[in-house]
Amino acid sequence: MQLMRRSGCPINLTLEHIGDRWSLIVIRDVMFENRRNYGTLLEKNKEGIATNILASRLKNLTASGLLTRSPDPTHQQKVIYSLTEPAIQLVPLLAYMVSWGIKHTDASKESVLRAEVLEKGGPALWDDLMEELRYLHLGATKPVRTVLHSLQAQNEEVY
Amino acid sequence: MQLMRRSGCPINLTLEHIGDRWSLIVIRDVMFENRRNYGTLLEKNKEGIATNILASRLKNLTASGLLTRSPDPTHQQKVIYSLTEPAIQLVPLLAYMVSWGIKHTDASKESVLRAEVLEKGGPALWDDLMEELRYLHLGATKPVRTVLHSLQAQNEEVY
Repeated sequence: MQLMRRSGCPINLTLEHIGDRWSLIVIRDVMFENRRNYGTLLEKNKEGIATNILASRLKNLTASGLLTRSPDPTHQQKVIYSLTEPAIQLVPLLAYMVSWGIKHTDASKESVLRAEVLEKGGPALWDDLMEELRYLHLGATKPVRTVLHSLQAQNEEVY
Repeated sequence: MQLMRRSGCPINLTLEHIGDRWSLIVIRDVMFENRRNYGTLLEKNKEGIATNILASRLKNLTASGLLTRSPDPTHQQKVIYSLTEPAIQLVPLLAYMVSWGIKHTDASKESVLRAEVLEKGGPALWDDLMEELRYLHLGATKPVRTVLHSLQAQNEEVY
């Protein structure tokens, strides 16, 4: 694969962080499904991510400051991954990706219903989602409104 | 590279189209710099795209319906590339990528100035930009307001 010359262009520099399909898929699973450990990210991923790919993407995302690793408070032997503030600020970008995808690809009906919540909610809902992610990942105050459940693919337990 | 299992998720399906760094870089150059032929896309690309990468991305983007190829009206021997309507609708996604990039990466000062125009303008400016792109790429009516010049990196000639 050809290496890119680094330009100062913010699109190019953003792609250095997330310009890899699997990286954004991992961020999506941590963000929208609240999957926080390697095992859950591996087993539940619906695109069938391979062990080596998941391990390398978790390492890269941690190195580039989008994820942090910390001991799981319920199992000190285990590690959980959390989104950082820059990763949480990817919400609008992922929301636009969802909007584009439901218009221009053959997204599944189940995904479309979920995606419509995200699209109809618009920036106000994205802000609420970001507040909720700051609570779940950064230890911020628990927000009044919960939006994550309405966006989850499989109604996994978040709280 | 591991192949992804196709899920119905719109993020995954969007990444099938644009989840490759070079593809989005090519779309960026066609969209914001109005570079419409192979030679210009190759020579002026500031990330130093290689000939084989550019050729393969132009082929893929055409196959996946984001670009069309047509004879250059000024040189019938040559081919120009145009954005399709789905590609034009990537404007908000690229705008969010720019916003994120100027906040969280060391984007160049020159790029930041340009990016701020895009960010401060917000959805109203993105709509005007999309109208202008429909004029330049799809033969729609020429819009009253021109925003592309204020967003170009190198003040190339658009009209």
